[in-house]
Amino acid sequence: MDQKGYRRGSFQSSTSDEDMLEIAGASVDLSMADDDPPLDREMGGFSTYNGGGMNGKSTMMDFLEEPLPGVGTYEDFNTIDWVREKSRDRDRHREITNRSKESTWALLHSVSDAFSGWLLMLFIGLLAGSLAGLIDISAHWMTDLKEGVCLAGFWFNHEHCCWKSNTTFTDRDKCPEWKSWSQLILGYGEGAFAYILNYFMYVVWALMFSLLAVLLVKGFAPYACGSGIPEIKTILSGFIIRGYLGKWTLVIKTITLVLAVSSGLSLGKEGPLVHVACCCGNILCHLFTKYRKNEAKRREVLSAAAAAGVSVAFGAPIGGVLFSLEEVSYYFPLKTLWRSFFAALVAAFTLRSINPFGNSRLVLFYVEFHMPWHLLELVPFILLGIFGGLWGAFFIRSNIAWCRRRKTTRLGKYPVLEVFVVTAITAILAFPNEYTRMSTSELISELFNDCGILDSSKLCEYVNDFNSTKGDDLPDRAAGPGVYTAMWQLALALIMKVFITIFTFGMKVPSGLFIPSMAVGAIAGRLLGVAVEQLAFYHHDWAIFSGWCSQGADCITPGLYAMVGAAACLGGVTRMTVSLVVIMFELTGGLEYIVPLMAAAMTSKWVADAIGREGIYDAHIRLNGYPFLEAKEEFSHKTRAMDVMRPRKNDPPLTVITQDSMTVEDVETIVTKTTYSGYPVVVSRASQRLVGFVLRRDLIISIENARKKQDGIVSTSIICFTDYCPPLPPSSPSVLKLRSILDLSPFTVTDETPMEIVVDIFRKLGLRQCLVTHNGKLLGIITKKDVLKHIAQMANQDPESILFN
Amino acid sequence: MDQKGYRRGSFQSSTSDEDMLEIAGASVDLSMADDDPPLDREMGGFSTYNGGGMNGKSTMMDFLEEPLPGVGTYEDFNTIDWVREKSRDRDRHREITNRSKESTWALLHSVSDAFSGWLLMLFIGLLAGSLAGLIDISAHWMTDLKEGVCLAGFWFNHEHCCWKSNTTFTDRDKCPEWKSWSQLILGYGEGAFAYILNYFMYVVWALMFSLLAVLLVKGFAPYACGSGIPEIKTILSGFIIRGYLGKWTLVIKTITLVLAVSSGLSLGKEGPLVHVACCCGNILCHLFTKYRKNEAKRREVLSAAAAAGVSVAFGAPIGGVLFSLEEVSYYFPLKTLWRSFFAALVAAFTLRSINPFGNSRLVLFYVEFHMPWHLLELVPFILLGIFGGLWGAFFIRSNIAWCRRRKTTRLGKYPVLEVFVVTAITAILAFPNEYTRMSTSELISELFNDCGILDSSKLCEYVNDFNSTKGDDLPDRAAGPGVYTAMWQLALALIMKVFITIFTFGMKVPSGLFIPSMAVGAIAGRLLGVAVEQLAFYHHDWAIFSGWCSQGADCITPGLYAMVGAAACLGGVTRMTVSLVVIMFELTGGLEYIVPLMAAAMTSKWVADAIGREGIYDAHIRLNGYPFLEAKEEFSHKTRAMDVMRPRKNDPPLTVITQDSMTVEDVETIVTKTTYSGYPVVVSRASQRLVGFVLRRDLIISIENARKKQDGIVSTSIICFTDYCPPLPPSSPSVLKLRSILDLSPFTVTDETPMEIVVDIFRKLGLRQCLVTHNGKLLGIITKKDVLKHIAQMANQDPESILFN
Repeated sequence: MDQKGYRRGSFQSSTSDEDMLEIAGASVDLSMADDDPPLDREMGGFSTYNGGGMNGKSTMMDFLEEPLPGVGTYEDFNTIDWVREKSRDRDRHREITNRSKESTWALLHSVSDAFSGWLLMLFIGLLAGSLAGLIDISAHWMTDLKEGVCLAGFWFNHEHCCWKSNTTFTDRDKCPEWKSWSQLILGYGEGAFAYILNYFMYVVWALMFSLLAVLLVKGFAPYACGSGIPEIKTILSGFIIRGYLGKWTLVIKTITLVLAVSSGLSLGKEGPLVHVACCCGNILCHLFTKYRKNEAKRREVLSAAAAAGVSVAFGAPIGGVLFSLEEVSYYFPLKTLWRSFFAALVAAFTLRSINPFGNSRLVLFYVEFHMPWHLLELVPFILLGIFGGLWGAFFIRSNIAWCRRRKTTRLGKYPVLEVFVVTAITAILAFPNEYTRMSTSELISELFNDCGILDSSKLCEYVNDFNSTKGDDLPDRAAGPGVYTAMWQLALALIMKVFITIFTFGMKVPSGLFIPSMAVGAIAGRLLGVAVEQLAFYHHDWAIFSGWCSQGADCITPGLYAMVGAAACLGGVTRMTVSLVVIMFELTGGLEYIVPLMAAAMTSKWVADAIGREGIYDAHIRLNGYPFLEAKEEFSHKTRAMDVMRPRKNDPPLTVITQDSMTVEDVETIVTKTTYSGYPVVVSRASQRLVGFVLRRDLIISIENARKKQDGIVSTSIICFTDYCPPLPPSSPSVLKLRSILDLSPFTVTDETPMEIVVDIFRKLGLRQCLVTHNGKLLGIITKKDVLKHIAQMANQDPESILFN
Repeated sequence: MDQKGYRRGSFQSSTSDEDMLEIAGASVDLSMADDDPPLDREMGGFSTYNGGGMNGKSTMMDFLEEPLPGVGTYEDFNTIDWVREKSRDRDRHREITNRSKESTWALLHSVSDAFSGWLLMLFIGLLAGSLAGLIDISAHWMTDLKEGVCLAGFWFNHEHCCWKSNTTFTDRDKCPEWKSWSQLILGYGEGAFAYILNYFMYVVWALMFSLLAVLLVKGFAPYACGSGIPEIKTILSGFIIRGYLGKWTLVIKTITLVLAVSSGLSLGKEGPLVHVACCCGNILCHLFTKYRKNEAKRREVLSAAAAAGVSVAFGAPIGGVLFSLEEVSYYFPLKTLWRSFFAALVAAFTLRSINPFGNSRLVLFYVEFHMPWHLLELVPFILLGIFGGLWGAFFIRSNIAWCRRRKTTRLGKYPVLEVFVVTAITAILAFPNEYTRMSTSELISELFNDCGILDSSKLCEYVNDFNSTKGDDLPDRAAGPGVYTAMWQLALALIMKVFITIFTFGMKVPSGLFIPSMAVGAIAGRLLGVAVEQLAFYHHDWAIFSGWCSQGADCITPGLYAMVGAAACLGGVTRMTVSLVVIMFELTGGLEYIVPLMAAAMTSKWVADAIGREGIYDAHIRLNGYPFLEAKEEFSHKTRAMDVMRPRKNDPPLTVITQDSMTVEDVETIVTKTTYSGYPVVVSRASQRLVGFVLRRDLIISIENARKKQDGIVSTSIICFTDYCPPLPPSSPSVLKLRSILDLSPFTVTDETPMEIVVDIFRKLGLRQCLVTHNGKLLGIITKKDVLKHIAQMANQDPESILFN
């Protein structure tokens, strides 16, 4: 099971990529005799050191206890060993608990240790909330800067600028202090020339923002691009990418995220906010030894930080926790659930007290619907689900194809040019259409909105019939010309968003996918909603409407359709389910609308899954070849451990070390000639009976150390891994005892073990490698990478793609 | 790892309790020679049957493929093997998928199989929702029956009865159709004699209800008593208790729950509703082969059913799912999360369409608060948390002590008498106090309520000052005499509830703990809330109130204090955290109040944990000695596998079977002389090299079968577990080949493996047993029970208590 977790500081990690662990080909000696006398002797007497032996050994190991730098850390692009990390933390915890009885100071240390996790969560929540507020405010201001400037102070955005002004409530958007660029430069805002000037300024600002973003990313923090969620999933599953969650990434990502969002590109800030929050979590981990030094504990913190990220992105703390649980996290114990919740709440409240939207609302899109929905409306909702699923599958395929093209052709060499071209096209296409010119979140807000009496937007331009109005409830009405115009513009916006997003996601700027996906779905939903509404208005005598939608009744809420459509499209792209519905539920706050949302999200997931199993994040993980062992999919092939293990049939023999018959020179030769990061130790080459597993780095360091500091260790010295070394002739050089670096509890399976179980074990226990035995004899080794390659092979994918590249 | 999952139908389970798996004492032969020529030969050639061998073997095994009854099932009070069950389901799934390509019918079967889970969830939701509605309505009616009867129809409860009447809105509770017993019998309702008659009738009805309940439970379904949550936790962790979720339990529990709640005992229906929902889930599983035949799949369904149960108990679907995840479930894959959510929603909507509360509300206690809370109020909230924690710890200790007394003394022999006495005391004490006379849920509702202008309850009898009233917002006011009376009555009610609940929970009637716990907390909270409110009113010039609580402002909401207190007490008793807060959040619907709730729940958990680690359910699990491996607590002792495995130091040797040298008679002797449910198979007694694991039941059935049907099998026949049996002299009887029943991939660990890792493996993989090896040689065996005993021993508890009794 655990191949080293048990002896705390005494193991060093591998120096090479886990690829190196592939220990190939074993020539199994067929001699019948089993030549391990010392072993059997030891075995017969095992009960004598039952329990007591432990203490003796632990003192023996002390000479290696954290004496050398780098102990217990991992190299970049390596996989961590969960069992070892968790064991180390338990040891640390045990030590602190034991010491706490000794002195008051140690007791205080123990208490502060117990509370450090909560303190860390508090800091993460505060920092993530503040950064999210900062990003919201800056992005809002810079988005408006593309259209004009406030004379009362250039740092006000359009809305704030007009709040200062004393204009009436209805014309809030138009105030003398806010000048469009044409008004500022030409002195007037109407006419063709003014329009062209505004157009020009809009495109120029957009290009400036996006170029600055790509240059910053390229120059200072290449990891700051994209949404970051695929990489965070991989990191949380136990992979190490140094600097991915570092302070430079945080600073550059925060700045470039604002720039990218403001440039008007078809991207959102929600995914990158998760990355930003995880950076905060990772950086704040350095405040506490407990988290700084332990990769498993740090991943618990990152899971919570991801929850905080979603919490501030949507103002949905519970949805954030479930997102972290469902979508990103790998190891999510209950303690983390509770802490994630705390971090998510603190972040949400920090954001609310910053109040970036100026409306005291926590949520990004606040909606309030008045009318219940009817069971028959489930038909259009399911249609939206199908649309969402189809769009999701289409988007994933096209985006992955385009990204693969970028990786493999010369296209990838000109990221700045690419961003320039895409921004130019987006800006040029976006300006003429009011619904693409506004920021995508504003668009979604407007689409979700239920038309009230006071709404002046084009989408609410219905033919008024005030006679039938009761209170605030507006009955279904005939659409006015404004609605028809809006429909056309929205249809064009839909087409543009659908295509431009494919090329945008994956560029070298921070780019989230939540908002563009939701926008596509919200437009489609609103279009369908208005269509159904008009159908119900003009044909309320049809059988399907009779009984629940009589004339003059308010029965269809197009805003709800937009919301359902947004959920469906987001579900189709990300394949989120529960967390998606809960996020949407937190937006509306009403249990009533969960059923439509769920119907759409479920349909969307089923439709999209039928076309392609992977969500966008998993697809990107595979595209980049990250070593991610998916926990959701079950491995369903009937292969066995012997089919996957190395050495394969015609490979050279498995490199092993014997427990008490190899010289220092022999071992040094093995270490030099091979690059594996660890070697199994056996009783003898003939018997191949497994004793333990030794890591390459430990071997090198120990031998080097012994040669320098221990007398009588020469090349012909025997290396002995047993407790009692065999007696040698007096003339021979002294023996090098290395039992302390031997992992005596390597994880083993038999060759007949089905791979589905092996996969399950790797997943659940977080192993790096596992030895394969047959009747107690060592046959081979399976590494995490072998497992990943095998899964890829079984799914008819290129097994060689499982490499970080 | 998996000791049998891989060969589908060919394994029978053990016939005896898992206790029997303790295979004790191994005499390890110290001879040096390794005498297994056929094995090494086989090993050298392993690569030749790489892959191809599998098919050959599977046909060989076909003769055992579900030919005998009882294959793949478990005995009562046994632990299931998760790995095997999951493997079996994967095999089934694989078969259906493969067949689906053959014919349209098979394709349809495959599709229906995929959707059967969802269909099942739909049914569970509908049934659980309907039953909850039925229980609510009946309990409401019968509770009112204790006080009087409706002349307009005896089947109306008090509220419904007066709805029918044409009285004014304010005096809704008093209408001519509703007659108290004194009015009905004596013709008048006032005066001492009427009071005594009503008192008498109240006690008589209560006794009738509770006696009927206990007699029904005792006579028909002993498993219907208690809350059921400890047992459900144990069942979900993989234990089998036949009939615990059966149809009789469902019927009797539903009826007796209504009776017990109506009798006015200090218990709630929320916990038992989880049991009822799980019964529904279990019974409905029989509709689908997929779930009927697989214990692991069925447990997934039960997890979802538990979520549906909480969902209908509180009208909190998301809280229900989180409750199932946090508190009850053991194995909770993401698929189950999504399905639980669906079941919980369907159940909630079914309940709402039944509308048992007559107010179209989904939630049990609907509350709407108008005022935000102030940061300084966190001090009383945390005080409430401390109270909740103290009460929780006190309750658990006293209740467990009382339950242990009931188990060990003669008290347990008179359950009917016990129920009679407790009901009598409860009813006699309850009637004079208005707050204990009403049903506990009504009491909580009233305590949560924020006093509005129209409220006529005693708790809202403030000195009115209509000058300062603005809209619906009432400013803080001086308490009137009604409030002071209410305070005294509430204090008495608190004392009564605190003590009577200790004796009530654990009696032989269905009894939930949620409602009594919440009542205790709500009373304490309301008392504190009113105190703080009056303090703020009379001393608004104090420094702590200045700035946020000026005169005439509405700054303290006593209802919120009640709610926070309820959460704190519930948290102290059950140690729920996230699910508790989310359930409370769903009651109020406002994110605002999450922080007070969380502060109280956290404080309460910390305080209670400091006194005793176990929640009430875990304490009851331990009291009853259920084999439950707690997934939350980490095992933190430094013992190793060799310290836990059997055989211990002075035990007789480990019983093993050799692979090709024992006769039928030898094996039969072993099976007769020992009671273990399985035996390790080794290469030879001398080498002790592990080949596999064979189950007792398989052995018995196979030998019996062979003796009957196979020619030449006599007592001296050699039993051979290898692929190629050794050549025998021609005169010897024919060989009995039993490779097909051998599990070739038993799970092994080395003797040096730390127990913390072994515990982790047992937990995460759901093992029943695990073999211990040293250098490839078999040393001993560890069963789940050994692990549980060891954990108990390390926690200084009686290890012998780990037995189902």
